[in-house]
Amino acid sequence: MKIALAQINPIIGDFQHNLEKIKKYITEAKKSSVDLIVFGELVITGYPPADLLERDDFLKDCENTIQLLCKESSDIGIIIGAPSLNLQVEGKDLFNSAIFLFGGKIQHIQHKALLPTYDVFDEYRYFEAAQDFKLIYYKGKKIALTICEDIWNVGNENPMYTHCPLDHYLEESPDFIINISASPFHYAHAIERIQTIQSNVKRYQVPLFYVNLVGAQTDLIFDGGSLAMSAQGKHWIEMPYFKECMEVFSLDQIQSLSHTVDQSKDKFELIHQALIVGIRDFFSKLGLKTANLGLSGGIDSALVAVLAQQALGSENLRVLLLPSQYSSDHSLSDAIQLAQNLHIRFDILPIEPIFNSFEKTLAPVFSGKGPDLTEENLQARIRGTLLMALSNKWGNLLLNTSNKSEAAVGYGTLYGDMAGGLSVIGDLYKTEVYALCHYINRQGEIIPANTIMKAPSAELRENQKDSDSLPDYDLLDSILRLYIEENKSKSEICSLGFDADTVDRVILLVNRNEFKRGQMAPVLRISKKSFGQGRRYPIVAKYK
Amino acid sequence: MKIALAQINPIIGDFQHNLEKIKKYITEAKKSSVDLIVFGELVITGYPPADLLERDDFLKDCENTIQLLCKESSDIGIIIGAPSLNLQVEGKDLFNSAIFLFGGKIQHIQHKALLPTYDVFDEYRYFEAAQDFKLIYYKGKKIALTICEDIWNVGNENPMYTHCPLDHYLEESPDFIINISASPFHYAHAIERIQTIQSNVKRYQVPLFYVNLVGAQTDLIFDGGSLAMSAQGKHWIEMPYFKECMEVFSLDQIQSLSHTVDQSKDKFELIHQALIVGIRDFFSKLGLKTANLGLSGGIDSALVAVLAQQALGSENLRVLLLPSQYSSDHSLSDAIQLAQNLHIRFDILPIEPIFNSFEKTLAPVFSGKGPDLTEENLQARIRGTLLMALSNKWGNLLLNTSNKSEAAVGYGTLYGDMAGGLSVIGDLYKTEVYALCHYINRQGEIIPANTIMKAPSAELRENQKDSDSLPDYDLLDSILRLYIEENKSKSEICSLGFDADTVDRVILLVNRNEFKRGQMAPVLRISKKSFGQGRRYPIVAKYK
Repeated sequence: MKIALAQINPIIGDFQHNLEKIKKYITEAKKSSVDLIVFGELVITGYPPADLLERDDFLKDCENTIQLLCKESSDIGIIIGAPSLNLQVEGKDLFNSAIFLFGGKIQHIQHKALLPTYDVFDEYRYFEAAQDFKLIYYKGKKIALTICEDIWNVGNENPMYTHCPLDHYLEESPDFIINISASPFHYAHAIERIQTIQSNVKRYQVPLFYVNLVGAQTDLIFDGGSLAMSAQGKHWIEMPYFKECMEVFSLDQIQSLSHTVDQSKDKFELIHQALIVGIRDFFSKLGLKTANLGLSGGIDSALVAVLAQQALGSENLRVLLLPSQYSSDHSLSDAIQLAQNLHIRFDILPIEPIFNSFEKTLAPVFSGKGPDLTEENLQARIRGTLLMALSNKWGNLLLNTSNKSEAAVGYGTLYGDMAGGLSVIGDLYKTEVYALCHYINRQGEIIPANTIMKAPSAELRENQKDSDSLPDYDLLDSILRLYIEENKSKSEICSLGFDADTVDRVILLVNRNEFKRGQMAPVLRISKKSFGQGRRYPIVAKYK
Repeated sequence: MKIALAQINPIIGDFQHNLEKIKKYITEAKKSSVDLIVFGELVITGYPPADLLERDDFLKDCENTIQLLCKESSDIGIIIGAPSLNLQVEGKDLFNSAIFLFGGKIQHIQHKALLPTYDVFDEYRYFEAAQDFKLIYYKGKKIALTICEDIWNVGNENPMYTHCPLDHYLEESPDFIINISASPFHYAHAIERIQTIQSNVKRYQVPLFYVNLVGAQTDLIFDGGSLAMSAQGKHWIEMPYFKECMEVFSLDQIQSLSHTVDQSKDKFELIHQALIVGIRDFFSKLGLKTANLGLSGGIDSALVAVLAQQALGSENLRVLLLPSQYSSDHSLSDAIQLAQNLHIRFDILPIEPIFNSFEKTLAPVFSGKGPDLTEENLQARIRGTLLMALSNKWGNLLLNTSNKSEAAVGYGTLYGDMAGGLSVIGDLYKTEVYALCHYINRQGEIIPANTIMKAPSAELRENQKDSDSLPDYDLLDSILRLYIEENKSKSEICSLGFDADTVDRVILLVNRNEFKRGQMAPVLRISKKSFGQGRRYPIVAKYK
C-alpha cells in the first residue's frame, strides 16, 4: 500500500483556496499510484477556525467543500480533517473529525477523543469528545485513525485526560496508525513529537503515519515535520519543516525501515525559520506586501528588520530613523549601517521639533510638575505616530519590535514602541534576541557588531541604560522563565538562589503589566508559553 | 431553618480581603441565629481567576483560606465556592466546587457538573466535571447543592450538555436546592435567571436559594440579584442588584411564600448601574482614583464623562478639549457646557500647532502623495498622545470612548481615539448610546441637548459626517446585531429585507477589523456578546 502524506498551508475560512490546494496534491498522488493520501487536522477550514465554527454558513460551506472532494475519491482513499455535525441533540454541536473518502463518498468518520483546552487551545469550546472508536478497513488493511492530541496520552499517562483513545483499538489489532495533526510549533516541539510517536509505536507495535499542517495562522506557526515511523520506533522518515509538500511512502518500506531521515533541531535555526514563515504568512494571507518599522540602532529593531527583509524582500521594507536629543551618535550610524547592509530604504526624521510642539501645547496642564516618565513616553508615542503615518500613507504594516522581556515587565510604551500590527520577536527573551542575532551573523556581519555589543538603552533621557530600571537581562530572563514558563512561585524561585527583592520586583512588574500586554499586537509564538491567547491572566487582580 | 444569602464582591487573588469580607458576613449572620450562610461561586478566589488556577502557590493560599474559614463554622453552616483538587491522577487537576463547612471542618464538597466553555467562559480549561452527586444532610434537612451552570440544563433541554445534574438527586427527594453562582450580567440576564430558576423549582417542587456574586472583574460585571423562590415558582424574593449585601430567609417562610419581591428590569436603568459599577471597581481594585478623557462635543465622550463622573466623582475626573481646524464651534461650546454641568476641570488644547509640526517632519516621506485618511488618523493620534501625556503626568487612567458600532466596523483610529485603559461603552451600539443618554437626561439636562441632536461626525476633515462613510446607525446597528449577536449569514440578513450591498460592506468591515479590536482596552460587558474574550475570531482569515 502506498501512502502519501501531504502537509499543506490552508487559509482559515478560504474554502476555495484550501480545496484547490488539496485537489492539486490528490492529482499528484494519483500520478504516483498512491492508495491513500492523508492531510492534516481541520485542513478544510484551516486551524484554528475559532468562533467561525459557531456560524451555520461557515459549516455549510465546509460541508459543501467535503462533498466536492468526494468526487476526487473514486480511485484513491483520502483522509482529511474537518469539523462534522454532532447528530445527537445532547452535547456540543460539532466534532473535530478525520474523514475517510473513497469510491466517491464518505466511508468513515472518526472523531477526536482528547480535546486540548489549555494554553492556546480552546477545543472544548466547540467540540464534543468521541465516544466511538472504529477501525477503517481498506484494501485488506485495518487502520486506526487518530487526531492530534489523541496520541498524546499514551497508556493514559497524561494526567489531563481520563483515557487513551488508541487502547480502544487494541483488540482488533490495527495494521497501522494514522494521526492527523495541527500541532503548533515551539522550539522544542519537534523532539517531543518524535518521542511521543515513538511511545505510541512501541506500545502498539505497528507503524504510525503522522501528518501536520504547515504555515502560520496569525500568531500560531505550524512546522510540518510530518513523519512515518517503523513499528519498533527505531527508525523514521521526517518530512521537511516549514515547507508545504507531499511525500509518498510504501507501507512495506516503513515496516522494514532500516534508516532514519531526520533534520537539524537547532533552537535558533528553527526559531529563525519559524519567524520568517510567521511574517510571510501574516502578510500574504492578509493580502499585504509591504512593511515598515523604526530602527533605533538597538538590537531589537535590528533583528526585526533582518527578519522582515528576509521574509518580504528589501524592496518591500522601509524604515524610519527617528533620533531625538537623547540619541547617541552610534544609534544613527548603527541603524544606517544596518539599512545599508539590508539594502532597504531609510529616512531620518528628527523628532525634536514635534516634541517641542507637544511640550508647548501641554505646558498649561503640566504646570508645576517636573519632567518624569511622561516625557519619555511622549517621545515613544511621537515615534509610534510617525511610523503609523508612514504606514497609513503607503499602505505598509507597521512591525512591532518589543521583545518578551520588555513585554513581561512592561518596559515599553503603549501606543509608542508597543505599536504595530504584528509582534515579531515578542516571544523571545532579550537573551534569546542576542542569540538569534549571533545566529543571523553566523556567516558574516548583517547586524552591525556594535548594535550587538553596546549596552541596551531606550535613549529616552540623558545617558539612560536599561540596567538603570531592570536587573541584568541574564538574571531577569532566568526569573521570567521560571515565573512565566514554569509557573514557579516567589518562594520556589528564591530557593533556587535568586535574591528575594529582585524576584519580588520582577513578579510585581509582570503582574502589573497585564493591561499593556492586553493591547499588544499578536505575538508570533515560538515557545511553549507566549503572551497572547495562550496565557490568560486577569487585568484586575491582586495576586502576587 | 434560617438561611442567609450573602452576595459579595471579591477581589481576584486577594485572599486576605475576601476572607475578611466573608468573615464579616458570617459574624453578622450569627447575630441573627442563622443556621446556614451561603456565598457565591469561587468566592474565595474571585471569578474568573483564569490562569492563576494553574499556579500551585495560588491554590495553596486558597486552601489555607478555607482552613481559616473552617474555624468560623463551629456553630454555623457555611457554603462557599472554591476550586478543589482532583485527587484522581486522571483528568484536569481541579474541580469547581461548593464546600460545606460545619463544626469546624469541611463536611462535604460538591463539584460542578456542567462546565461552561463558550463565550467568556473557559471552565474546562481548568476543571474536571463532577461525576458524583451527594446530598448534604444538615439539621434534619436534605440539601441539593449545585453550582451556577448546573441548573441551566433543566430536564436536559440545553443542547450543550449531556445530562441534568439535579436529576441525580431526584430519588433522594431533597428538601431544597442551593445554587451558588458567578453569573455575569447582561441586560436581559435577570429575566432569564428568574425563568431558569422557575423551571427548576417546577421540575423538582422544592424551594431554591440562589446566590450570585456582585461587582466587576475587569470586563465582567456581576449584578447580584440573589433570590429565594418557593417550591411552586409562583413567588420569590429577589435581593438588590449591584449591591453587596446579605439577606436572611426562613425555610418555612419561603416554602409558603405568598408575595414576590422584585425590582425594575428596565434595560437602560440596568445598563446605567452596571457601567457605573464597572468603572468604580476597575479603579478601586487597581488602586486608582482619577480618570481623564477627551471631550469632543460628541455624544460618545459626553456619555463616558457622565458615567465616569457618577462613578468616580467630579473631583476625580478631568477632561481635555482638543479642537482642530475642522472642529465646529458647537463642538467646543457643547463640550464646555457638559464639563460645567458635571463640575469637572477642563482644559482646551488646540492641536493645530502639533499637527503642523508633524506635517513638516513627515513632508520628506509623504512627497508626491495627497492628503488622505493618514491626516485624519494623525489628528486622532495627536489627541491620543496628549491624553496619555496628561494621564502619565497626573496618574490618571485614560477612559476610552469608542462605542460598539465603531469598534465593529473599525471606524476609529488605533492609538488615537481607540486608546485608553478601559472601554466604558464599547458594548453599546450607537443607537444604545443615544438611548442611554436620554435615560441619563430623564430628570433634566445633564448632556447638552445639542450633543444628542446633532448629526454624528468625527470632524477630521471639512464638513465630515459619519454618514459619509457608514450607513445610518439605525440600519448599521440592525445589521451588526444580526451578524454579531445572532451569527446570521449574509443571505439570512438579506432575506430579512436588508440591501445586499450594504450587508456585504458591513460584514466585510467587521471581519477586516479584527486586528483593531485585538488591541482595544477591556470592554465593560453589558450584552450577551461583547467584543473581547467572549468573541474569538481569527485576525488572519478569509471568510466573508
